[in-house]
Amino acid sequence: MKVFTDPKKLQKWCAARKLAGRKIALVPTMGYLHEGHLSLIQKAKAKRADEIVVSVFVNPVQFCPGEDYEKYPRDEKADLAKCRAAGATAVFFPTPKNMYLDRHSVYVCEEDLSKGLCGARRPGHFRGVCTVVAKLFNLTHPDFAVFGQKDYQQVQVIRRMVRDLNFDLDIVMAPIVREPSGLARSSRNTYLSAEEKEKALAISRGLRALKPNSKLSTLNSQLKSAGLRIDYVECVDAQTLEPRKKVAKGCCVLVAAYDGKTRLIDNILI
Amino acid sequence: MKVFTDPKKLQKWCAARKLAGRKIALVPTMGYLHEGHLSLIQKAKAKRADEIVVSVFVNPVQFCPGEDYEKYPRDEKADLAKCRAAGATAVFFPTPKNMYLDRHSVYVCEEDLSKGLCGARRPGHFRGVCTVVAKLFNLTHPDFAVFGQKDYQQVQVIRRMVRDLNFDLDIVMAPIVREPSGLARSSRNTYLSAEEKEKALAISRGLRALKPNSKLSTLNSQLKSAGLRIDYVECVDAQTLEPRKKVAKGCCVLVAAYDGKTRLIDNILI
Repeated sequence: MKVFTDPKKLQKWCAARKLAGRKIALVPTMGYLHEGHLSLIQKAKAKRADEIVVSVFVNPVQFCPGEDYEKYPRDEKADLAKCRAAGATAVFFPTPKNMYLDRHSVYVCEEDLSKGLCGARRPGHFRGVCTVVAKLFNLTHPDFAVFGQKDYQQVQVIRRMVRDLNFDLDIVMAPIVREPSGLARSSRNTYLSAEEKEKALAISRGLRALKPNSKLSTLNSQLKSAGLRIDYVECVDAQTLEPRKKVAKGCCVLVAAYDGKTRLIDNILI
Repeated sequence: MKVFTDPKKLQKWCAARKLAGRKIALVPTMGYLHEGHLSLIQKAKAKRADEIVVSVFVNPVQFCPGEDYEKYPRDEKADLAKCRAAGATAVFFPTPKNMYLDRHSVYVCEEDLSKGLCGARRPGHFRGVCTVVAKLFNLTHPDFAVFGQKDYQQVQVIRRMVRDLNFDLDIVMAPIVREPSGLARSSRNTYLSAEEKEKALAISRGLRALKPNSKLSTLNSQLKSAGLRIDYVECVDAQTLEPRKKVAKGCCVLVAAYDGKTRLIDNILI
């Protein structure tokens, strides 16, 4: 497994692999890898990628002021071992300084799908996501990139970016991976106490119970009585992310809620 | 010479050429081709491109409200003939509808170099330029792209975009091509009456006369007494585009001025 820190070297290697006719998959992550990330690598394998490039980068530009950029969990050594074991053929560990050079001034903005949901609560978040993902696409020229459904809005925003900027690649969405309790896997779960983990289950339990015509007010009450502070509970069209009044086929119901100080997200496609 | 209108077909062709080891040059234009554009194609030839892709697209997104998008001169047939004669191997003639699909919502923004000069007078212009050029880069994956020095700020903005978004290509800047009178070639020169063309010469004459320590106030007076309405006359650092008080080596002096209703630009590297 190759390990890169220098963007130019990664780019050169990927270009050579591509010229050699190899099929490249990109798996962008912020590291502190868990079963969810590893499922993305599995997905890349299942789709017969010859090279699986995992990027591990806590992207400062997608964090808003006051968010957890500094304390976001990091463990490079464990991540390397996990990538190797999962079958990655290259890992990219850049530094903020070599990803954002002096006077960095170019950003990619999505102005439709990123307006609501997490985009409304985290100003600049999707600008940061689109920018770093565009950079990773240009560095690796993948045949496809794998993202997890847990960040459902992110997947839709990136699909739109691929379409609108004519990136020559496919976006593959992999299903949410859950702990045996039902809690969606997240690097941020490490912030949760045992008690908070227990509370968090109301989210996955509430989402799983949804059916066409279910009332969101029920889900709202369930989350509140579990002791969570709701950021949003919304039902949207799964493609356009436009609000839908009724839970129905073709919708996605998304939740963001604070469990103590930790913001958790989860969703379900109806 | 291949002619494409469908972005996907162009992309497929370029990808195949690239895999075959061919060196690809991109020459982005808005059409109504003149000697200036043809010099860009010559430059691509001189740099030994195997495939020279000329795009001809009046990009609506880079025009501001009230500008000349509708009346911008167009002549597809003549452009095709000129591209063929100049040695282009492919021409891309997209329509606004196939470049900007329904609900297009992703834009590339440069937030430093594009603040002053034309960027200050034409809000959204460089956002439109960066977006369409990023799309063209993704469609053609060129080894290099050729731009004219006449749009000096544009070249610098695009160089920054290439750096900051990690596009794997070089930007080549070709010198300004002038009419025998000295007037910088521009598709918009077609708007000028004989009298206006005469007036316009004050710009190139004034710029040519500049030396280290020349006063910009002299240039300003020359333009005014010729009957031009100055939009800006600025001396900036040629790399950072930051204002410089003195005309000196390493500077670029740029002019934008209205000649009747036509806005002309020109510049000189000191």
